[in-house]
Amino acid sequence: MSTEGCESRVIDGKVLAQQIEEEVRTGVEDLESGRGVTPGLATILVGDDPASRMYVRLKHRACERVGIRAEDYLLPTQASQEELLSLIYTLNKNKDVHAILLQLPLPTHFSPQEAMEAIAPEKDADGFHPYNMGKLMIGDEGLVPCTPHGIIRALEEYNVPVQGKNVVIVGHSNVVGKPMAAMFLNRNATVSICHVFTDDLKKYTLGADILVVAVGVKHLIKADMVKEEVVIFDVGITKEEDGVYGDVDFENVIKKAALITPVPGGVGPVTVAMLMKHVLRCAENSF
Amino acid sequence: MSTEGCESRVIDGKVLAQQIEEEVRTGVEDLESGRGVTPGLATILVGDDPASRMYVRLKHRACERVGIRAEDYLLPTQASQEELLSLIYTLNKNKDVHAILLQLPLPTHFSPQEAMEAIAPEKDADGFHPYNMGKLMIGDEGLVPCTPHGIIRALEEYNVPVQGKNVVIVGHSNVVGKPMAAMFLNRNATVSICHVFTDDLKKYTLGADILVVAVGVKHLIKADMVKEEVVIFDVGITKEEDGVYGDVDFENVIKKAALITPVPGGVGPVTVAMLMKHVLRCAENSF
Repeated sequence: MSTEGCESRVIDGKVLAQQIEEEVRTGVEDLESGRGVTPGLATILVGDDPASRMYVRLKHRACERVGIRAEDYLLPTQASQEELLSLIYTLNKNKDVHAILLQLPLPTHFSPQEAMEAIAPEKDADGFHPYNMGKLMIGDEGLVPCTPHGIIRALEEYNVPVQGKNVVIVGHSNVVGKPMAAMFLNRNATVSICHVFTDDLKKYTLGADILVVAVGVKHLIKADMVKEEVVIFDVGITKEEDGVYGDVDFENVIKKAALITPVPGGVGPVTVAMLMKHVLRCAENSF
Repeated sequence: MSTEGCESRVIDGKVLAQQIEEEVRTGVEDLESGRGVTPGLATILVGDDPASRMYVRLKHRACERVGIRAEDYLLPTQASQEELLSLIYTLNKNKDVHAILLQLPLPTHFSPQEAMEAIAPEKDADGFHPYNMGKLMIGDEGLVPCTPHGIIRALEEYNVPVQGKNVVIVGHSNVVGKPMAAMFLNRNATVSICHVFTDDLKKYTLGADILVVAVGVKHLIKADMVKEEVVIFDVGITKEEDGVYGDVDFENVIKKAALITPVPGGVGPVTVAMLMKHVLRCAENSF
C-alpha cells in the first residue's frame, strides 16, 4: 500500500526537535554570556539495561549539540536504594548540576517513586516529582513531563486548535497518559482517557479530533478506528527483529489523518529536545 | 411529577455521612485512649462572606460531633496576604493543630494558590496542596480532596463497580473535576471530562455508567441526557429564593437512574464527613 502524496500529513519529529534544540542552544549561549553559567544535567543510570543505556546516550548527545554540560552517573544493578538516594541528595546540593534525570525503569528491588521524590523539585527535568505533577494538575505548569510537553508544542507549531476539541488519550500511565490529560484539560479540551480496561475503545477513538496513543501495542489503532482529519500522536514503541513499530497502523491510518507522527522519528526526538528545554529552564531558574 | 417508588434509588448523603462520622468518632477515641492525643483542626476564614461563614460553621459542628478540637481563626477582609501566610506558618508549627483548612474563596486581593501551598502538606486536610495533588495523580492517594473522596466512598458503600466503567465528569475544576478524574483513573475506569467548552455534552453524558456533575448550573442535566441505570453524583449547588438546586433535574432524572444523590442532602454532608476523616488521619500520621 502506498502512502504517496501523504508526506504533508506527517509531523516530522526530527525537524521539530532540531528547531527546539536551536532555541535551547540560543538560550544556553545567552545564559553563558549573561551570567557565566553553563546549564548542567546529571543523568543517573542504574544497571546495564541496553535500552536504558541507549536512551541515556541519546540524551547526552543532545546535551552536546545544545551546549549543556552532562554528567553521567552509573550505579551497578546490585546497588541499594540508599546508595541511589545518597547520590541524588549529593546532586541536589551540587550547584553545577541544575537538573537531574533518573533513567527508568530501575531494577526491581528499587523504589522508583521514592527516588523520584528525592530529586529536588526545581531540578526535576522529567517533571515526575509529585510537587511538579500537582502544579501541572492545578493548571500551573512548570516542569512537566517531556513527552506530553512535546506534543503540546507540536500542536502549537502546526496551529492545531485545542480548546473545545475532543481529545482521546489511550494509555493512563504517570509518564504520558495522565499528565497529557491534565495538559489538555488546562487548555479546555474535552478529554477522554482510555486504557486496557476500556470496554469499547473504538467508540472512543472514532470521536477523537486529537488522538494520543501511548500503550506499546503494535498497530493497536487501525484505520477504521479513527475519523477523517484526525490529528494523531503515536507514543508507543514496539521493537521487533525487523524494525520498530508504533501503536498506530501508520501506513493505513495516514490516509485519513490530517496530521500524524511516525514511529520512529516522531514523538521520540521531540521528547529529548523538550528535556533539553527543561534543563535550560532549571538553570535559568537557579538564581 | 411524582418520584414515588424511587426512594431506593436515592443515595442519602446524611445517612452515609453519619456512618463515616461514627467511624471517625471511634478513631478519635482510640487516638485519645491510646496516645492521649485529641485531633485538632484549625479553620481560617478571611472576610465575612455569609456562605463561607456557614460552611465553616458546618465544619465546626461536625468536629464537635466526632470529638475533634476545632480552632477558629478569623482575618478581616482587608488583611494582607502576608498576614494570612504568617498565620499559616504559625499553625504549621503548632503541634496541637494536626490539620488546617483555609476556607475558599478568599477576597480577590489574595493569592489562594500561594496560601494553599503554604499549608504543610501533612496538615492539608482539603488535599489541595500541589504535593498531595501530585501524589493523587500518580496513584499514591493520601490526603485527597474531600468531595471526590466522598464520591468514591459512596460508590464502595453501594457496591458500584468502577473498573472498566464509562465515567463522565462534567466540570474540570481543581477542587472536584480534575481530582475526581484522577481517582477514577486510579481505579481503571474509562474517564471523560467535559466542561463549558465541550461541543456536544449530551453525546458524552449519554454514554456514562457513572456521571459526576460539578458545574453549578441549575438542572443542566435532563432526563434525555442520561441512559437507563446510570449512577449520578450531583455536586452542583445553585441557590435561589425558593430553594437550593443541583446541576441535575432530579425529579425527572431519578426515573432513569440506578442511584442518584439529591441536592441538598447528597454529596454535601459526605464531603464534610470526609473532611473529618482527613483530620483524624492527619492526627494519626503526626507521630
